[in-house]
Amino acid sequence: MTLTHTPAPTNTQLNRLFAPTSIVVVGASASPAKLGSVMLDAINRGSDGTVTAYGINPKGAGDGFHLSLAAATESHGAPIDLAVLCIPAAATPAALREAADCGVGAALICSGGFAEAGPDGIALQNQLADITAETGIRLLGPNTSGFFRPGNTTVSFVPTVEHINRGTVAVVAASGGMNHALSFLLSEQGVGVGLGVGLGNSVDVTSVDVLEYLSEDPTVTAIALHVESVDDGQALLAAVRKVTAEKPIVAIVVGRSDVSAFSESHTGALATSWKTTRALLAEAGAVVVDSERQLVDALAVLSRTRLPAAPTPGIGLVTAQAGPGLMILDELLAQDVQVPTLTGSTQAGLSELLPPLTFQANPVDTGRPGATFGNVLATTAADPGIDALAVYALAEPDAIDLAAAVRESGVHTDVPVVLGIGGPGEAVGKTSASAAEIGVPVLPSPTALATGISALVHDARSRYLRAADPRPTATATAPALSLPADEATAKDLLDALGIATPQRRVCTDRAAAHQALTELTLPVAVKILDATVVHKTEIGGVHLGIRTAEDLDAALDALDAINAPAYLVESMAASGVDLFLGARRDPVFGPIVVAGLGGTAAEAIGDVAIRSHHLTHAAAAAMLDDLQCAPLLDGWRGGPVLNRDEFAHLAVTVAGYLAAHPEISDIEINPLRLTPTGLTALDAVILPAPNRPTALEGELQ
Amino acid sequence: MTLTHTPAPTNTQLNRLFAPTSIVVVGASASPAKLGSVMLDAINRGSDGTVTAYGINPKGAGDGFHLSLAAATESHGAPIDLAVLCIPAAATPAALREAADCGVGAALICSGGFAEAGPDGIALQNQLADITAETGIRLLGPNTSGFFRPGNTTVSFVPTVEHINRGTVAVVAASGGMNHALSFLLSEQGVGVGLGVGLGNSVDVTSVDVLEYLSEDPTVTAIALHVESVDDGQALLAAVRKVTAEKPIVAIVVGRSDVSAFSESHTGALATSWKTTRALLAEAGAVVVDSERQLVDALAVLSRTRLPAAPTPGIGLVTAQAGPGLMILDELLAQDVQVPTLTGSTQAGLSELLPPLTFQANPVDTGRPGATFGNVLATTAADPGIDALAVYALAEPDAIDLAAAVRESGVHTDVPVVLGIGGPGEAVGKTSASAAEIGVPVLPSPTALATGISALVHDARSRYLRAADPRPTATATAPALSLPADEATAKDLLDALGIATPQRRVCTDRAAAHQALTELTLPVAVKILDATVVHKTEIGGVHLGIRTAEDLDAALDALDAINAPAYLVESMAASGVDLFLGARRDPVFGPIVVAGLGGTAAEAIGDVAIRSHHLTHAAAAAMLDDLQCAPLLDGWRGGPVLNRDEFAHLAVTVAGYLAAHPEISDIEINPLRLTPTGLTALDAVILPAPNRPTALEGELQ
Repeated sequence: MTLTHTPAPTNTQLNRLFAPTSIVVVGASASPAKLGSVMLDAINRGSDGTVTAYGINPKGAGDGFHLSLAAATESHGAPIDLAVLCIPAAATPAALREAADCGVGAALICSGGFAEAGPDGIALQNQLADITAETGIRLLGPNTSGFFRPGNTTVSFVPTVEHINRGTVAVVAASGGMNHALSFLLSEQGVGVGLGVGLGNSVDVTSVDVLEYLSEDPTVTAIALHVESVDDGQALLAAVRKVTAEKPIVAIVVGRSDVSAFSESHTGALATSWKTTRALLAEAGAVVVDSERQLVDALAVLSRTRLPAAPTPGIGLVTAQAGPGLMILDELLAQDVQVPTLTGSTQAGLSELLPPLTFQANPVDTGRPGATFGNVLATTAADPGIDALAVYALAEPDAIDLAAAVRESGVHTDVPVVLGIGGPGEAVGKTSASAAEIGVPVLPSPTALATGISALVHDARSRYLRAADPRPTATATAPALSLPADEATAKDLLDALGIATPQRRVCTDRAAAHQALTELTLPVAVKILDATVVHKTEIGGVHLGIRTAEDLDAALDALDAINAPAYLVESMAASGVDLFLGARRDPVFGPIVVAGLGGTAAEAIGDVAIRSHHLTHAAAAAMLDDLQCAPLLDGWRGGPVLNRDEFAHLAVTVAGYLAAHPEISDIEINPLRLTPTGLTALDAVILPAPNRPTALEGELQ
Repeated sequence: MTLTHTPAPTNTQLNRLFAPTSIVVVGASASPAKLGSVMLDAINRGSDGTVTAYGINPKGAGDGFHLSLAAATESHGAPIDLAVLCIPAAATPAALREAADCGVGAALICSGGFAEAGPDGIALQNQLADITAETGIRLLGPNTSGFFRPGNTTVSFVPTVEHINRGTVAVVAASGGMNHALSFLLSEQGVGVGLGVGLGNSVDVTSVDVLEYLSEDPTVTAIALHVESVDDGQALLAAVRKVTAEKPIVAIVVGRSDVSAFSESHTGALATSWKTTRALLAEAGAVVVDSERQLVDALAVLSRTRLPAAPTPGIGLVTAQAGPGLMILDELLAQDVQVPTLTGSTQAGLSELLPPLTFQANPVDTGRPGATFGNVLATTAADPGIDALAVYALAEPDAIDLAAAVRESGVHTDVPVVLGIGGPGEAVGKTSASAAEIGVPVLPSPTALATGISALVHDARSRYLRAADPRPTATATAPALSLPADEATAKDLLDALGIATPQRRVCTDRAAAHQALTELTLPVAVKILDATVVHKTEIGGVHLGIRTAEDLDAALDALDAINAPAYLVESMAASGVDLFLGARRDPVFGPIVVAGLGGTAAEAIGDVAIRSHHLTHAAAAAMLDDLQCAPLLDGWRGGPVLNRDEFAHLAVTVAGYLAAHPEISDIEINPLRLTPTGLTALDAVILPAPNRPTALEGELQ
C-alpha cells in the first residue's frame, strides 16, 4: 500500500522530524549488536510513551517488526512521522524514496560514506538531495548520530544519552559527536537540554532550518550553535538575527587554525572562514565564544536571564573574597565589560553594612559574608549605574546561604543576578539547585562567572547595536558608475556618496597639469590615471610631495615613460593615521565591510574588523573597537581622534552601495586617512564583478 | 618561663610552619563564633593525629587552653612549632614577639588591617617585618586564611576545606581566597592537593620561600602558582628555574587589565606588570595559563606525567568522534603544538585496524571504538614523530573502557597519554579513577584536553630552551663605554659586540662630511651627533637619501642651524623590515630584553617579546615567535627572512652587556633593520643609569 503524501508546511514537517509520535527503523535486524537494533532499542528506552516505534526487517518479521515500510505504515494506520535508515550508504537512496512514497515526514541517516568519502559518496549524497527536493521529505544527516529530547524522545545510538538532563537549551551542532559532547557538558553543569541535534552532512536540514524551527519552540530559552562550515551565509545570518531578537544564541566556530584536511574527511565540507564567520554571527546577535566551556558558562546565564538591549550595561561585582574578585574584575575589564564606580550615596549606604576596611566602590568586597549580605546586594543593585550583579563567594555553609540571601533580598527581581561559587561539589550543587528555583544561574569559578557576565553584556549590546537605528537608504539614490572606473571616477562616486576626497584635477596634457599646480593647495601628488592599472605605486605611477614646476615636469616625464593615458593631480592630505575601508563580496556571506589600520603590521596580524552589509550605523560606529590597534584611533601620542559617526557613515554607505550594485565586486578605499579634520579617501579602487550575481539582487529588493 | 631560641635552618623552620606537630592559637576564646575558636576547631578536626593544638585565653583557661604562650610552651615541654594569631591587628606585633621569645618556629596572622589599610596599617606591618628580621621567626601573612595539607593538617578557618582531596599538587596563591578557590577546583576535577598556601601580605614568607621549600618536598609533583604582584623578581625567576628543572609549575598572573585600585586595597601591593611577568615566568620554566580552569587542566596532566625536554614534541591525536577531534586539533594548532602527519608505514598499520572511511594521517579518527582501539593507540605512539598521545572519546560503556584499553596496550609506559572524555559524570568519573591508577590523566572536554596537552608540550619546550646551551660569556670581554654616549660611540660598541652597523664617518667639519660622501656607498644619511639629543628626528637632526654635494650642503646647513656639534655621515641600508631591540632595567625583574616590530601599530597593540638577561641563545632564537606579527619575519610578500641565530646573538649580547654594566640603564637599537643580507642597527641609544644599581652587581658575580 502506498499512501498519498501531501507536503505539509515546513515547520509542521520539522515537527514530524524532531517531535515524532511514530518512528520506523529500517535495518533493525534481530541481531542486537547491529546499529539498527541499538537504535530501535534506544528509541524505545528513551521515549516517554508518546512514541510508537517499528522495526523493518525484510528477512523476517518479529515482535514489533515488519517486512517493509509499507507494511509498517499500514499497521500504524497512518503515515509514519520519522524513518531512521540504519543501512549501508549505497542502499539509502532507495529506502529514502520508499519512505517518501509511504508519506513518511522525515528521515534520519546515521551512516557515513557520503560526501566525506570521495566521488562515489558524493554521487550518493546528490541522489539523496534530489529525492528530498522532489518529494519534500525532510532529511537529517547523513553522517550524524541523531538527535534527542531528554525525557521525551531519543533518536541516537549513543547509549549514555539517557543521562542528559532535560532543560531549556537547544544544541544545534554541525556534528553528532559535538552534539553529544556539548549536551553532556551542559547537563553536568546543571544546564539541561531541551533538544540536541547533530546535523552531519546537512544534505537537507541545515542549521538555518533548525534555528527557525527553534524560534517557535516555547520550551527552548537559549541555543548553542556549533559551526564547522557555512553553506548559505546570508540565510544563516538572517536566521540568527530573527532568533536572537527573541532568544539568545551562543555560537562556537571551528577553524581558527588550518584544519582543512581533517575537516573535509569529516563531513565533506571545508572549514569556513573563521574570522568572518565569527564577526558576522556576533553582528547578527550571537554571543561568540572560544571554547565549549565558555559556551556552557554563557548558556548557564543566558538560558535563565537576559538584559534589555543596551550599549554598555554596568555590572556590580560583589565578592566575599578579594583574590577571586580581583580575577573576575581583571577578566571583565579585559572583555570590555563596564564595572562602574558606585555613586557616593551607594557607597555611603554600603559603609553602614560592611566593615570599614573593605573596598566598597565596585567591586564591593564584603569580607566574610554576614547577615547584611542581602542588603549589600540590594544596595549595590539599586545604584543608577548598575544593570546586573555578579556575586562571588566561597561556599561557607555556616556563614551564609547565598541563594537564600538573594531570594530574601528580592534583588533578582530587579536586575539579573549571576552567582559564582567556589567549594566542594556538594555545597556548590546545593546552592545551584536552590538558586535555580528562583532562576538565578550559578557558575563554578571566577573565570566562569566573568564569562557568563560577559555573555549577558554582549548579548544586550549586540541587540542594542542592531536595533539602535534603521538601515539607512541614502545609497538608493547614488549614481551608477561606468566600469571599469579609474581613480578619478571612483573618487567622484565617493564625493557623491558624501565621502571626503582630496581636491584634484584630471589632466589630459602637461599644460593642464601645470595649471592644476597653480590652482591646488600644495604640495600635490601626481598619479597615472588608468582604469586598467590597480597597483599604481608598484609601476612608478605615483609621485608625491610636488611643489614646483620642475618637480612636476620630472613626475610627468616618469608618467609619460609608463604611457600614462592621463594624469591625476591632487592636493596631498595632512599627515595622520592611515586606515583602509573595503566593501567586498564574500563567497559565503555576500557583501561585507572590512576595515582596519593600513600597513603591513596590521595585515600580518590579521587585525581587521568585519561586518555584513546589514550593519547599522551604530554597529559601524562601534566596529573599529574590535581592532587590537584601536588605541591608535583615539589620539595616540597627540594624533587625531576618529569621529565614530563619520566613520560609520562611510562604512554603511560603501556597504549599502556595493549591496545595491551587483555589477561591482569591490570598493576599496586605501589609504583612508584619519587627519585632525576628519577622514579623507586618498585612493579608491572599484572593481567590476566578474559575473553579475543575480541572486543577490533579489535578496536586496 | 622563656625558652632560649636557636634559629634553625630556613627549610627546617618552614617545615615548622607547613608541617607543624604543635600549634598554638592565640585568641581562641571560649566563644565558638570567634575566629580563633573556629580556627582551633578547624585545626583539631583537620589534623591526622600528629598535631597537638593549644588555645591561649588570657581571661581564663579551660580544657586545652592556657593563660599565656609561655604557659602553653611549658605544658608542651618543648618549643611550639606554629603560633596562629587570631587577634586584632594592633595586638599582633607584641604577640609575634612573645611567640619568638618562646621559641615558636613560625606564625600565621589571618587578620587584615595592615599594608592594605593605609598609614596605620603600614606602620603595623613594618613592625612585623622588623620582628621577623630580628628574631628569625617565620611569618605567613598577615591577611590570609592560612594553609592546609588535606588529610594531614588544616590551618584555615574556611570550614569546607575538609572536602579537599589529598593529592600531589601544591597551591601557592597570593591570596587566601584564591588558595581555596584553586584547591577546590583541583579537588573537584580529581586532582588532589598536597599543600595549599595563601600568602596574603607576604611580610616574611613569600612565594620564593614556598617554592624553594616545595622543591625539596617529595610528596609534591607539581605546583600551581597564583601571582598578583612580584616584589623580588630575580629571586622569583631563580626559584622557578630551580624548581621547574625538577617539577612543573603552572602559573596564573593577575593584572591583564588595570585593576590597581582594587588590587591595592586587597594586599597593599599594586598588580605587577602583567606582560613582563608572564613572559619571564614562562622563560624561567613555568607554564603560564589564562584562567584558573586552564590551570586545573594543565596540572591534571603535569602532576602525573611530563615529557623529556624537547623543542617541538609531536602529538598523536586519536579520536573516536570527528567533531570533537576537529575542535581539539584546531586548538592544538592554535597553541603552536605539532600534530605531525604519521609515516606511511604507521598509516599502513592503522589501515589494518580501522574501517576504510576514517582519517588516519593524524588525527586518527577511529570511528566507534572497537576491540582494536588499544592497538590503534600503540601503533600511533610507535610512529617516530610521536612523543605523546591525546585521546578523545565519548563515554560508551558498552563499546569500550578507555582506561582498560590504554592499560592493556601498555602504551602509557612508552609515551605520556592524556585522555579526554565526554559523557555523564558517573562514566567520566569511573574512567578517571581507573586511569588514575595507571597514572594517566583524564580531562572532561575537547578544549580541556587540548589545554592539558599544550601544557605538556610547553613545559618540555621551555626546559629545552633553557638547557639547550650554556649562558654565553662573550660579553665579559667587551669594552667599557664612556658615558654619555653619542650615536657613533654607541655604534662602535655594537661593532665591538659583533652587531652590524652601517658604514659611517664622524665629521667635525663640512670638509670631512664632503670627503665622507665620496667614500661611502650612496645614498647616505646625515645626522646630528650629540650625546645629549635622544630624539634626533623630532628636532630635524636627520636627513636621508643624500647623493649629491648640493643635497649634503643643504643638510649640513640645517644641522648647523640646530647647532650640531658634529655630523654623522652614514651609508643607508637596503630597505627591509624595521624591528627594535632593547635591553632595559625592569624595576622588578632587573635586566630584560624587549624586541618587536618597529612602528606605531605594533606599539599600540603591545606586540612585544620579553625575556630576562638569563635568556639562552635558543630562547633568544625563539623569542620573536611570540610576536603576533611573526609572519612578517619569514619572507612576507617576498621580503627578507630573519635568521634566528643572528637575532639570538644580538639579543643575548645586548642583554649580557647591560647585565654586566650597571652604569647603563638602557641599550636601544631602533630601528634594527632586517634586510636580505641580515640585521643592521640603524640607530642606537645608550643611556646611563641614574643610580648605579649595586645590588645587581652582586647578583651577577
